[in-house]
Amino acid sequence: MQNSSDLLRNALVDVAAGIDALFDRLLAVPQDPRARLYEAMRHAAIGGGKRLRPLLVCAAADLFHVDRQLSLRVGAAVEAMHVYSLIHDDLPCMDDDDMRRGKPTVHKAFDDATAVLAGDSLHALAFEWLIDPATHADPFVRSELVRELALAAGPAGMAGGQMMDLMAETSNFDLPTVTRLQQLKTGALIGFSVEAGAILARIPAEGRRPLRGYARDIGLAFQIADDIMDVEGDEALAGKALHKDADAGKATFVTLMGIDRAREQAGLLVDQAIAHLAGFGEEAALLRAIARFVVERDR
Amino acid sequence: MQNSSDLLRNALVDVAAGIDALFDRLLAVPQDPRARLYEAMRHAAIGGGKRLRPLLVCAAADLFHVDRQLSLRVGAAVEAMHVYSLIHDDLPCMDDDDMRRGKPTVHKAFDDATAVLAGDSLHALAFEWLIDPATHADPFVRSELVRELALAAGPAGMAGGQMMDLMAETSNFDLPTVTRLQQLKTGALIGFSVEAGAILARIPAEGRRPLRGYARDIGLAFQIADDIMDVEGDEALAGKALHKDADAGKATFVTLMGIDRAREQAGLLVDQAIAHLAGFGEEAALLRAIARFVVERDR
Repeated sequence: MQNSSDLLRNALVDVAAGIDALFDRLLAVPQDPRARLYEAMRHAAIGGGKRLRPLLVCAAADLFHVDRQLSLRVGAAVEAMHVYSLIHDDLPCMDDDDMRRGKPTVHKAFDDATAVLAGDSLHALAFEWLIDPATHADPFVRSELVRELALAAGPAGMAGGQMMDLMAETSNFDLPTVTRLQQLKTGALIGFSVEAGAILARIPAEGRRPLRGYARDIGLAFQIADDIMDVEGDEALAGKALHKDADAGKATFVTLMGIDRAREQAGLLVDQAIAHLAGFGEEAALLRAIARFVVERDR
Repeated sequence: MQNSSDLLRNALVDVAAGIDALFDRLLAVPQDPRARLYEAMRHAAIGGGKRLRPLLVCAAADLFHVDRQLSLRVGAAVEAMHVYSLIHDDLPCMDDDDMRRGKPTVHKAFDDATAVLAGDSLHALAFEWLIDPATHADPFVRSELVRELALAAGPAGMAGGQMMDLMAETSNFDLPTVTRLQQLKTGALIGFSVEAGAILARIPAEGRRPLRGYARDIGLAFQIADDIMDVEGDEALAGKALHKDADAGKATFVTLMGIDRAREQAGLLVDQAIAHLAGFGEEAALLRAIARFVVERDR
């Protein structure tokens, strides 16, 4: 049997390769005036990032022996949603970032209008790929996936969290408000990723409760680790600009709790996430390894 | 029996009122830092426009005696998709428009970042509303609706057409290319609207063929009329800036065909659209009236 760091390393490599292959096929460049739009999507989507969200879909789906081809398709949909949010978030009128995943951002490599449309296109494609019969033969399963993804992406999820993030620059948010902001901005899509694995296996909402608890805890631990990295991290390793929150005077877990308590809290959340998986045996080893990974990445 | 202009006028008023009431309920402002996001969506979505797309959903669904509450919900989804595209299209990095539907555009009334997120939110909500069991009890019907809307909105539909429109400023598109551009940019969503009515009634793809033909023809007629309005129209009546295409040196139906042939072509397309409905009787009177309306609006 593999030890847990081999297990994680192999899964990261496999999922990243699977997602890149799928994107390469699904985003084939047409020979018409839309070519530039597809090139912009490929620039942002292919060959970068840790593919944490697709990895979570696959790891959760593995618990229930779901075919890896199906979980990779759902992983490609959630990654497309994530990439679209990064493209729009990086725009000059939003966070105004020049680098992402070690490459120029889409609006830098192309232009602002193309970046808006590439984000919009990936947003629609996420739903198109999810609802395709190739994702699952049962339309009820596909409907559940679309419903959960739409909730996670919209104003009650990621887009709502980004709006709160804009307000954070001029408001003095307290810890419960920052927690809520992060649950929407990054937690909702992480939650979708974990739950989608169980939806593919037709596990009813009641049976998905431990996975929802796991996802909530790693989502927050992930964001606390991100806030710590924003203060302590290395820009070259991160592949993007850091120290932006401090410069903007935004409240973060680190400014509100101090770095030592933030680090301790992230560790506690990882333990708690793993405790939610107590009902599972060895088949949840990858999910446990991912929980530890989310606070250790890029270090 | 009502004559066709009363029929159209009453339907326009009824559908507009139904859509405004639905938006008012579905976009209730939350008492948290996301309030501004919802206010921006309401600014763009409520109380404006002719609601042509929801009207088409309702008129097509009426052919098959679909409950008006269901067709209005689908109408709200397609209108949300349309409004999101207008918000992004009006951004400074896109068409840079200050007025829309007689009001300041979202980025003028709010700011660019809020406009990006309001568009993104309406995009996700369109899918959320469509996939909700309240839209239709059968998950297969809901899946079909989501699939067709995702195709119509994404890079093979509206977003792809907008990319072609960006390229049109620096390319010399010929008539077939401009036709294809418009079929993607506005035709795809108009096509979805008409077809959705039949999907709600579980009419199989084969049986929807006359409606697809009708939609294709009125979509092109609509766009030719738009190009004519861009040259001849009154900005106050249109509620937006005109003469933009000519100023940008873009190829349009008017520049390629001349205004007389363009007007003639729009009329022929309307006749052809109505001919597609020959298999229907009096129940298609509203669709026929809409076909005439799309070339006569704002005149």
